[in-house]
Amino acid sequence: MPGSGTDRTRPPSEAAAPVIILVEPQLAENIGMCARAMANFGLSEMRLVAPRDGWPTGGGLKKGATSAASGATHILDNARLFPDAAAAIADLNYVLATTARERGQMKRVVTPAEVMPPLAERVSGGERVGILFGRERIGLTNEEISFADAILTFPVNPTFASLNLAQAVLLTGYEWFKATGGEPPFRENNSSPPASRATVLSMFDYLEAELDRCGFFPAGKKPVMTANLRDILHRLEMTEQEARTLRGVFKSLAEGPRVRRE
Amino acid sequence: MPGSGTDRTRPPSEAAAPVIILVEPQLAENIGMCARAMANFGLSEMRLVAPRDGWPTGGGLKKGATSAASGATHILDNARLFPDAAAAIADLNYVLATTARERGQMKRVVTPAEVMPPLAERVSGGERVGILFGRERIGLTNEEISFADAILTFPVNPTFASLNLAQAVLLTGYEWFKATGGEPPFRENNSSPPASRATVLSMFDYLEAELDRCGFFPAGKKPVMTANLRDILHRLEMTEQEARTLRGVFKSLAEGPRVRRE
Repeated sequence: MPGSGTDRTRPPSEAAAPVIILVEPQLAENIGMCARAMANFGLSEMRLVAPRDGWPTGGGLKKGATSAASGATHILDNARLFPDAAAAIADLNYVLATTARERGQMKRVVTPAEVMPPLAERVSGGERVGILFGRERIGLTNEEISFADAILTFPVNPTFASLNLAQAVLLTGYEWFKATGGEPPFRENNSSPPASRATVLSMFDYLEAELDRCGFFPAGKKPVMTANLRDILHRLEMTEQEARTLRGVFKSLAEGPRVRRE
Repeated sequence: MPGSGTDRTRPPSEAAAPVIILVEPQLAENIGMCARAMANFGLSEMRLVAPRDGWPTGGGLKKGATSAASGATHILDNARLFPDAAAAIADLNYVLATTARERGQMKRVVTPAEVMPPLAERVSGGERVGILFGRERIGLTNEEISFADAILTFPVNPTFASLNLAQAVLLTGYEWFKATGGEPPFRENNSSPPASRATVLSMFDYLEAELDRCGFFPAGKKPVMTANLRDILHRLEMTEQEARTLRGVFKSLAEGPRVRRE
């Protein structure tokens, strides 16, 4: 049960990230999908303010959330419950409130892409920061927004602006992950180095000699056609391996069908 | 039915955006959630390659998708059906293939944030571009990936890397929207201009005179305490209206309880 028993010490990398605070979430499935979105981007600390159907006493509720979390159950297991938003943010130093609509407040308005780099600086300087997300349909109350240092909102098509709760958490986590150096899971698989110019020129020489032999170049046209061909092939920016592969392709075409050795 | 009857002419703003191509999507709900994510970020052209349960002949299928689309039904209504990925990209000039795992191909690997600005340039130069998204569990085949110019992948926590289909479309659309000048739905509501220095200094004078009157400053401490107080209040970077509000607050405190006029 949250808060009871032995407190698992979070690894520093996980502790040093914004807390995601869901205020009166209505649907267990949404809580689970938020946990999943958090896990995707290295956020681990979830706080729940008075979930409509209780937590975790509603066994069915937590089961629905766990199913939607697709394995991010450590986040649900460690989620802490608070009676109201003020209690949920009491230990934090800096708080953002998410809203989709203008709320008539004088507060600074920021997008995730704008705020995450300075937020990461606060976190690495030892501040505890949190982000409030409101109820599915009606969002945060004006009083809850008044607790925050700034308003977080999302760039979204004004004619179709409905982001659901988990999508808002996803975009928030995504920008946090990017701002803290998050990298894609893999990059180019070019174990072969770029082709040396000698390899490329030797491939050109071979190709042009074979084309000459085949009568490819009309009289007087060889210089300009050769230049065009080299332009096309240079554009490939081949690796050493690719240059060898292409040379093999030209050779195979030039030599024609081989007798198979059975 | 897609492709039959009168073709609705798309407005140029909507046509000039990447085509989202879902290859053999399994669940109607996912198709609907992808449509919703597309609508959030101004993408409108969806193509479906051989959805597992047919389209739109499965009436229940389309109903499930429509429900998950939360109003983005124009996208589902205009979705075009193709027998395979090659047919779905035949009219396009530039194609990305999304994958979550290294696939042993030599192709360039890009993230949404990296690729969307150059993709927007291609689109504004008249190219038609498309992005292939694979099956929910197994993604795209190696052959389907080979159709693409580059691989699109997402920066994501390597220990919890499962993005679902609609989340991948959401992040793609989000970066497209940002790269094409998408703005948040509102900004600061500061109709009041920044306070003039005269207003701020006059507020300081009033406050310090009242504090003097109340005996707030210990003997000899007034200069340093005044400087500290001014540091705190300057940090507010007040608007003209806020400076007046704060002055009213100090005045009300200094004057004490007023007799109410009933």
